[in-house]
Amino acid sequence: MKTKVFYCCLVLFFLGFQGYVDARLLVESKPDRDDTAAYARWLVSQNSWGILTTLSIELEGSPFGNVVSFSDGVPGKGTGVPYFYLTTLDPTARNALKDHRSSLAISEYPLGTCSNADPESPVCAKITLTGRLVLLEANSKEAEFARTALFTKHPEMKGWPKGHDFQVFKLEIEDIFMINWFGGPKPLTVDQYLKYKM
Amino acid sequence: MKTKVFYCCLVLFFLGFQGYVDARLLVESKPDRDDTAAYARWLVSQNSWGILTTLSIELEGSPFGNVVSFSDGVPGKGTGVPYFYLTTLDPTARNALKDHRSSLAISEYPLGTCSNADPESPVCAKITLTGRLVLLEANSKEAEFARTALFTKHPEMKGWPKGHDFQVFKLEIEDIFMINWFGGPKPLTVDQYLKYKM
Repeated sequence: MKTKVFYCCLVLFFLGFQGYVDARLLVESKPDRDDTAAYARWLVSQNSWGILTTLSIELEGSPFGNVVSFSDGVPGKGTGVPYFYLTTLDPTARNALKDHRSSLAISEYPLGTCSNADPESPVCAKITLTGRLVLLEANSKEAEFARTALFTKHPEMKGWPKGHDFQVFKLEIEDIFMINWFGGPKPLTVDQYLKYKM
Repeated sequence: MKTKVFYCCLVLFFLGFQGYVDARLLVESKPDRDDTAAYARWLVSQNSWGILTTLSIELEGSPFGNVVSFSDGVPGKGTGVPYFYLTTLDPTARNALKDHRSSLAISEYPLGTCSNADPESPVCAKITLTGRLVLLEANSKEAEFARTALFTKHPEMKGWPKGHDFQVFKLEIEDIFMINWFGGPKPLTVDQYLKYKM
């Protein structure tokens, strides 16, 4: 009995240790905070969900945030451009088709790499990409690329009901707001962000 | 040596087990999905951060989402009203003082109670509270209540720099959008939400 418990504990210990190692790898792959473009691209490619905001048709132009999944490429090959799989059954897609103005906000907090910092602390990074949320032509090469990017990070999407008519959208980034340390938002142009090689 | 490893593993096992129990308690305390008011209030009181969106002054009225911490009361005594601790050094507070229209979006995903569901799946709940983001009078009873609510959930806030002039804001809720299962957003009035007794 004692031996069984011992081996059971040993297995649990190694499972825990593996989780610890995984988290450490993520922390270690975190770019230097002064390498602004690298940090922004890391934050976007590591995260799989965020809040996509549009101007509400139903609520008289109020800003309407909505939880969405996204992908900027297959794992390890992020492009920095977030793609989404949305249906007009949901207000976000309807709003975007009327007024393209939109933003995507992402937090480092759920990645588990903020140590003990509060989610609002500047030490726990956050990024807001603001721009135009546009529908991609379903048969275009970019839509095909986006579907692969989305379905590899979100396998469940492939099975979402055909009748809901999910379509691929992308955020054409026009402005980047990122805080990843004390001292306010880091200067970063869209060009610097997009041209950074991972 | 073997005995030492055994006891070390035993401690790790119990620590892991405790974490498992904590997660189970959270799952078990999750209200029935058809009890809409209870679910919405649970989602807001269990979460400590979300994306607060305002209309950007700098980006020509674009919706601007920002990662923030919030609290709707001390743990176990949520009121449903989200309070924030913001500084006008950050665009969100500046935007809100010019145009109060705002929304707070929260996901169930970071709570770890969505099993294997994708963050965008309707099975993983999400809520968007839309309304007016207003500054509270610093010496008011409500601001005092809000500071206690915020500082108990976010102890780090107490030590944030005085010079940054953090102030208490609240979201006066006017509309609730919540999805916590298949079939689209659940009907829920602000009155039903606020009057629900936890």
